[in-house]
Amino acid sequence: MKRAELVQQILAKKSFLCVGLDTDPERIPTHLKDAEDPIFEFNKAIIDATKAYCVAYKPNLAFYESQGVAGWASLQKTIDYIPKTHFTIADAKRGDIGNTSRMYAKAMFENMSFDSITVAPYMGVDSVQPFLEFEEKWVILLALTSNKGSQDFQMAGQDGGAPLYEKVLRTSQSWGTTENLMYVVGATHPDYFKLIRKAAPDHFLLVPGIGAQGGDLYGVCENGLNADVGLLVNSSRGIIYASQEEDFAEVAGQKAKELADQMADILAKKGLL
Amino acid sequence: MKRAELVQQILAKKSFLCVGLDTDPERIPTHLKDAEDPIFEFNKAIIDATKAYCVAYKPNLAFYESQGVAGWASLQKTIDYIPKTHFTIADAKRGDIGNTSRMYAKAMFENMSFDSITVAPYMGVDSVQPFLEFEEKWVILLALTSNKGSQDFQMAGQDGGAPLYEKVLRTSQSWGTTENLMYVVGATHPDYFKLIRKAAPDHFLLVPGIGAQGGDLYGVCENGLNADVGLLVNSSRGIIYASQEEDFAEVAGQKAKELADQMADILAKKGLL
Repeated sequence: MKRAELVQQILAKKSFLCVGLDTDPERIPTHLKDAEDPIFEFNKAIIDATKAYCVAYKPNLAFYESQGVAGWASLQKTIDYIPKTHFTIADAKRGDIGNTSRMYAKAMFENMSFDSITVAPYMGVDSVQPFLEFEEKWVILLALTSNKGSQDFQMAGQDGGAPLYEKVLRTSQSWGTTENLMYVVGATHPDYFKLIRKAAPDHFLLVPGIGAQGGDLYGVCENGLNADVGLLVNSSRGIIYASQEEDFAEVAGQKAKELADQMADILAKKGLL
Repeated sequence: MKRAELVQQILAKKSFLCVGLDTDPERIPTHLKDAEDPIFEFNKAIIDATKAYCVAYKPNLAFYESQGVAGWASLQKTIDYIPKTHFTIADAKRGDIGNTSRMYAKAMFENMSFDSITVAPYMGVDSVQPFLEFEEKWVILLALTSNKGSQDFQMAGQDGGAPLYEKVLRTSQSWGTTENLMYVVGATHPDYFKLIRKAAPDHFLLVPGIGAQGGDLYGVCENGLNADVGLLVNSSRGIIYASQEEDFAEVAGQKAKELADQMADILAKKGLL
């Protein structure tokens, strides 16, 4: 998907919500457990109920891999089911030497037709480049993640004093463009968005961490928005497990709508609609 | 597998060779391509031909994922086929927030019964810890990788002047023990092994990068060995694609034996046998 299409979808829906499909077989409502493919049935219902309120879906690959071959099949069916209007993110945190990253890119962009993949920057330029060689596909590079461990290395100062996450933001910008490179910045660090927007004013940011992880939508938007909106804010558990009863999809839809309404309100107030 | 068992295997075989199963369908010999599962048939023949000369196997997950559901099935069959005497490494470079890393750990340690997984350190302690909670399972944390991009962030100085890879080595040692934590150090950086052994004298190191990537076994061993040998040196393409004809397995066995013979020689000269 091109950036212009993504921005158009966001403005049309007045939403920059991404729904995270962290589908855990142990948290699927009981009445679905006898289905032939409970994971896919769950995802299908969630997608149907939320697609009007979000612009992106982010399956978390760990949850599918943990189910072995069957999980991989559920993932394939899920990605095939997501409407083409929606931006798709393989939340995979991959990254390896060149010939291996190329294989991961093939796996996610060709076999699975994802629009984007999350990549860890630790191995540097030649671990990221192969993903950027696919047309209309995106790398979403980890910059400042939402978890406690982000303090161990990401926030530590590198040569010249800037923290590692900032060096990642600045160094990697020459590897791609604002048309094929985004960054992960956790919602749990709202105070950092001003600094991050200084280092990367025009890129889209994928923002996990609202809801279950404690991040706040308004705090993120305060300094995170740019002229093209420039944010995809993800909620996973806060939406898909809002109810674990038969009404799970309906309640997920309500939760997605609540967030989308808040987003519409924020966009209007910022004069972005 | 316990460390003592691994050391025992190494001393019994006089080899610390790991064979990398980077099995690319495009490089499989023609006569195997009509098999029901060419990837598994290839791996099976490679394992049969090399198992006497190596102590570990390292399937590179990207190559299996790139084949979708079928690739995942080939991987499962491969891991089931590897003899229990051999240490198995899921070369996956995973790492995510806690609940997600736990899912990856389940995928690799429970469903697939790998002994270990390679993990990227960028996300810090809570992305690594869940893997360390499994008994007799190992994390192999990226420290200094074999590729050119290792210079982008790993070699840059952090607070106090030490490069990031050294901070990773020092910080992460408190997360695990020498019984469940190893490090990846590329063979393409032989000059760094002295420094690395200063920071992590007792840990095992997984060393990729000899062969196709240009690293040298003797250079690595000069400063890399410790009292328990402490090295697993990996070769992938240099062994499994040494011939792409019908004799591929036989030639792979010869290449593995050549490396094992060099290793026996080194171990004898260092007085480790």
